[in-house]
Amino acid sequence: MRLSLNQWTTRHWPLPDLAAGCASAGVGGVGLWREPVAEYGLERTAKLVREHGLTVTSLCRGGFFQAPDALEDNRRAIEEAAALGAPVLVLVSGGLPDGSRDLDGARARVADTLAELAPYAGEHGVRLAIEPLHPMFCSDRCVVSTLAQALDLAAPLPSEQVGVVIDTYHLWWDPAAWDGIARAGAEGRLHLFQVADWVTPLPAGVLTGRGMLGDGCVDLRRYRTAVEATGYTGPIEVEIFNDALWALPGDEALALTLTRFTEHVT
Amino acid sequence: MRLSLNQWTTRHWPLPDLAAGCASAGVGGVGLWREPVAEYGLERTAKLVREHGLTVTSLCRGGFFQAPDALEDNRRAIEEAAALGAPVLVLVSGGLPDGSRDLDGARARVADTLAELAPYAGEHGVRLAIEPLHPMFCSDRCVVSTLAQALDLAAPLPSEQVGVVIDTYHLWWDPAAWDGIARAGAEGRLHLFQVADWVTPLPAGVLTGRGMLGDGCVDLRRYRTAVEATGYTGPIEVEIFNDALWALPGDEALALTLTRFTEHVT
Repeated sequence: MRLSLNQWTTRHWPLPDLAAGCASAGVGGVGLWREPVAEYGLERTAKLVREHGLTVTSLCRGGFFQAPDALEDNRRAIEEAAALGAPVLVLVSGGLPDGSRDLDGARARVADTLAELAPYAGEHGVRLAIEPLHPMFCSDRCVVSTLAQALDLAAPLPSEQVGVVIDTYHLWWDPAAWDGIARAGAEGRLHLFQVADWVTPLPAGVLTGRGMLGDGCVDLRRYRTAVEATGYTGPIEVEIFNDALWALPGDEALALTLTRFTEHVT
Repeated sequence: MRLSLNQWTTRHWPLPDLAAGCASAGVGGVGLWREPVAEYGLERTAKLVREHGLTVTSLCRGGFFQAPDALEDNRRAIEEAAALGAPVLVLVSGGLPDGSRDLDGARARVADTLAELAPYAGEHGVRLAIEPLHPMFCSDRCVVSTLAQALDLAAPLPSEQVGVVIDTYHLWWDPAAWDGIARAGAEGRLHLFQVADWVTPLPAGVLTGRGMLGDGCVDLRRYRTAVEATGYTGPIEVEIFNDALWALPGDEALALTLTRFTEHVT
């Protein structure tokens, strides 16, 4: 099965239950997050997923390049991805420093830090995947706002070291997304494909307003088709931040996700 | 003075008080909204602003092109703008129809309706100004999300009939905004310049989260400079949707706006 369950979709599901639940539902891939992995233990997590026959499709997340310890922290994230056998480290590039209005400067810092990190990722067999986040997150989470911009940032670096994430939630509004997907494929930089739907009204803070597949206005199947048309045969990660979904027991949330994936993505 | 007070910044200020307040503060321009104008009376509003020596810099808003009566309603909006002596009708193009996932279709409808409306606007001496709204409004308010897209929509039509609004709140995140401003100027389509600041966290529904000038992370002065570098000598409208600002008495909100405008825009 192409579907991979990103851990944040079933955020409160303990790792052992999540691993057992995925295995029993026939889901072969999981996208993991650093914080719960650290809590459960890195080696212990690697062993757990191996024992359940699961593939770790990505680790979330590196990035936050404006932080003073960004280089060190991202090197650790690369090492963690390698230890888990995750081929991809998702990068959320970080917003503006407090009080700053220098958006160009923040974006330049992303480029500089990527150049320093890329060889280290290459040595560890991990591909860095720049995730353009929806422009509503530009000031506080991610100054990389479009797929074209992410590809331009990746362009000076080897494609086996640095590429992009295509996430329907973040890109669905962009008239240039289709050209960007084709370009990402042609440049060998389409490192990960994630799906979630867009619903309104957005909640306060906007972070937890992603929609379950099919609940919103994104033509998810068109995105999958466009991604596959580039030759992408990797996982399709479902990553949904949603309070109502998080309130469900993990196995119910996964069952709902599987049903909706079949109805709206495949 | 270049500053024009968009009426929605002091949303609850009755029109006669707003007109008197602007005149007494030395503000010579106002951007008006159709609903409060209709409530006060169209001819009566035109007389009121004339008597106070004010210029109507724009009328908000036409658009919402997915509505069944969009053509009729926009023709009325053009007539109202002409009656007020407003040179510009701001267009908020509308979101997706209920239940639709056809974003391309909605955008095509905007193009078609613009082509029908443009000559009517020309006959009335009113310029239509397509406003790209922040992508977080794409599904429910405006499928026109970038300046490049707005300019592409305007391109087939005469520049004296159809142009764009540059609003810092909606465009600040876009790496292509600077090229877009230069292009808008070169094509004679920079019909209106509006300012507001970007602040987080966004409130639920995100509509009323705009920041007072200087409270956020937008380099407003850089935008003004870029707009003026194209040869734009028109008004700078301050348009801020913000609950805290709306809770102030109109004259206090205007005084604060004037101070911040001097500190952060001029």
